[in-house]
Amino acid sequence: MSYEDRRNKLYQWMAEERVGLAMFEHTEARQDPSIRWMTGHPGDGLLFLGFDPQGKSHSLLVPWDINIALIYAEADSVIPYTEFERQPLKAFQGAIAYFKIPFGSKVEIPPVTPYPLFLHYVEAFIDFEVLCRNGGIHREVEVLRAVKDPKEIGIYRNLSAITNELIDVLEEQIRSGELNTEGAVALFIEAECRKRGCEGMGFETLAAGPQRSFGIHPFPAYTGGDFATPGLSILDFGLKYGGYTSDVTLTFVRAPLSRTQERLLTLTERAYRLALAMVGEGTAAKTIAAAVDAFFGNAKKSMPHALGHGIGLEAHESPSLRNRADNDWVLKPGMIFTLEPGLYDPAHGGCRLENDILLTEAGTEVLTNARIIRL
Amino acid sequence: MSYEDRRNKLYQWMAEERVGLAMFEHTEARQDPSIRWMTGHPGDGLLFLGFDPQGKSHSLLVPWDINIALIYAEADSVIPYTEFERQPLKAFQGAIAYFKIPFGSKVEIPPVTPYPLFLHYVEAFIDFEVLCRNGGIHREVEVLRAVKDPKEIGIYRNLSAITNELIDVLEEQIRSGELNTEGAVALFIEAECRKRGCEGMGFETLAAGPQRSFGIHPFPAYTGGDFATPGLSILDFGLKYGGYTSDVTLTFVRAPLSRTQERLLTLTERAYRLALAMVGEGTAAKTIAAAVDAFFGNAKKSMPHALGHGIGLEAHESPSLRNRADNDWVLKPGMIFTLEPGLYDPAHGGCRLENDILLTEAGTEVLTNARIIRL
Repeated sequence: MSYEDRRNKLYQWMAEERVGLAMFEHTEARQDPSIRWMTGHPGDGLLFLGFDPQGKSHSLLVPWDINIALIYAEADSVIPYTEFERQPLKAFQGAIAYFKIPFGSKVEIPPVTPYPLFLHYVEAFIDFEVLCRNGGIHREVEVLRAVKDPKEIGIYRNLSAITNELIDVLEEQIRSGELNTEGAVALFIEAECRKRGCEGMGFETLAAGPQRSFGIHPFPAYTGGDFATPGLSILDFGLKYGGYTSDVTLTFVRAPLSRTQERLLTLTERAYRLALAMVGEGTAAKTIAAAVDAFFGNAKKSMPHALGHGIGLEAHESPSLRNRADNDWVLKPGMIFTLEPGLYDPAHGGCRLENDILLTEAGTEVLTNARIIRL
Repeated sequence: MSYEDRRNKLYQWMAEERVGLAMFEHTEARQDPSIRWMTGHPGDGLLFLGFDPQGKSHSLLVPWDINIALIYAEADSVIPYTEFERQPLKAFQGAIAYFKIPFGSKVEIPPVTPYPLFLHYVEAFIDFEVLCRNGGIHREVEVLRAVKDPKEIGIYRNLSAITNELIDVLEEQIRSGELNTEGAVALFIEAECRKRGCEGMGFETLAAGPQRSFGIHPFPAYTGGDFATPGLSILDFGLKYGGYTSDVTLTFVRAPLSRTQERLLTLTERAYRLALAMVGEGTAAKTIAAAVDAFFGNAKKSMPHALGHGIGLEAHESPSLRNRADNDWVLKPGMIFTLEPGLYDPAHGGCRLENDILLTEAGTEVLTNARIIRL
């Protein structure tokens, strides 16, 4: 789908729901790469979708950096954020004037808008019906983004190939002893991914040697300390390519291991296989996460985080694979998400295995090659 | 000040304002390192400050990762987030029960709470007065954090020394031609800062050679492209040390330059000196930013971003040095903030000069040594 196709889907939704103007915000305070999804603009800014007095749909981008927007963004019109003193409320006012939105119209702002700021909108736009809700256009975008289109799946095929190539090189260099500290491993990935055409990292690499792998997210993310010495070492990284993020976790294992460590590994691998076997069209994501929690519970263990999450323009997006009553995501073809069971023990360290999964009409496809590597 | 001293200031404020329970949230959706400021806990979690039935103050930390909390956090009690199904509302319910907060009490949630979520709080805690406001306890923390205490200033002295050492090494290696691509420069900083005891980067390093320096924030942040070839190259980086972030920008200049480029440099340097000369106790931050905007305006130029911002546990925090009607910050001893005038031209590239400034009783101290470097 082109950016315009994506916007057209939303105009259609807006017409049905009689929403005259919708704002998307990607600023330091509230980040929403949906703007990139709809226009290609990779930087901060606001995006307005609306209808002019003739009922014609129109997109207005208000970028923080006009020079970046002029290169990357596809929108019907572009007005620099500076024209609105870089204030969302003033830009909203400007957009209402620009589109000539009639009094009484429904205008929608992001559902992440803080309550005190929402009150300012309501006060400033008293002549309009200001919507700020979880079930509105932003949810519509979230649902659309959760199912990747062929172009996005193509990006993920390239990204997964780069990720897998790096996994193999990492295994080789860690086996040979070339990379033997957390920092060396993390910086190697930083450098190599860019050589292979990536924009950068999808998130800060987490590299934890056996002394620190008990943390779900080690603190700091990586240090100059040993990696892949005896025990369990965790490496969690993601590459960003064409805006999209991969997300994998490897556990490097070096003998001698305690019985507890062996058990953590066995349980994690079994949980991963259990989850993978359950993935399928129409399956409720929650039931997979619940099955893994039950499996660990039977073994008198507990996983302190979710089973997985969608990936895309954000490192964590929909669908959620979380065992929580309010999780109503159902797996569909086109969804790309992680499975990442893990167990953590303050005395013995931790392990996690995470791969990126694509569900297609034909079935489950494991895009990435992360694994538990016994050195 | 110890973590406990900081919390005590807030209990005092809460007693005066008759707030029975206050929540701070540092999660993926809403990040607030105030929890680290009050407890030392560097990871995700919730922090509750409140009073027990005897009126005794008490802090309850609800960390996402209990193992990290047990090492780093100082709080009166710690309950893992998993006990509340990792849901802020359930944790809030748990805290009300734990503290035995009487019906009718004022309970305060973060002012960044989205409006739809705020409605859930109001509904779930109908027996309490749920506060979600800009002028409440979170503002109090913001104001306290804006003035650094002697311990924090000590951290900044070490951090600035490391930052300055790196600036000198960078100049040397860029002059010698050792570092000649954006990526080489950025990865050098990543590696070197950790060798010198930093936790990592304060934010993603921005390195833009002459072809890309027109962007306020180049996209991508850095590439394999040339750095410090003829024209203007911008390097914007920050190191994180003991939780605190430095933030500097250097412009590397190599002849031949166009007259426009010379003019951008001259104006930026003069704007920087103008701003620095205006810094002083009791000065409204807005007036300095306005003076710089006026200076550029007189030269028929315009700066597309704020003049500066406070730094601390966040790369951007209070005080704001922004020329905006709602900016009422007044400079005070103990504040640490950046001054970062810059100009950007799509055809000629950009330049920016940014240093970290500490205001003391004795006057203005420029902590960092960033500069425009003519190669």
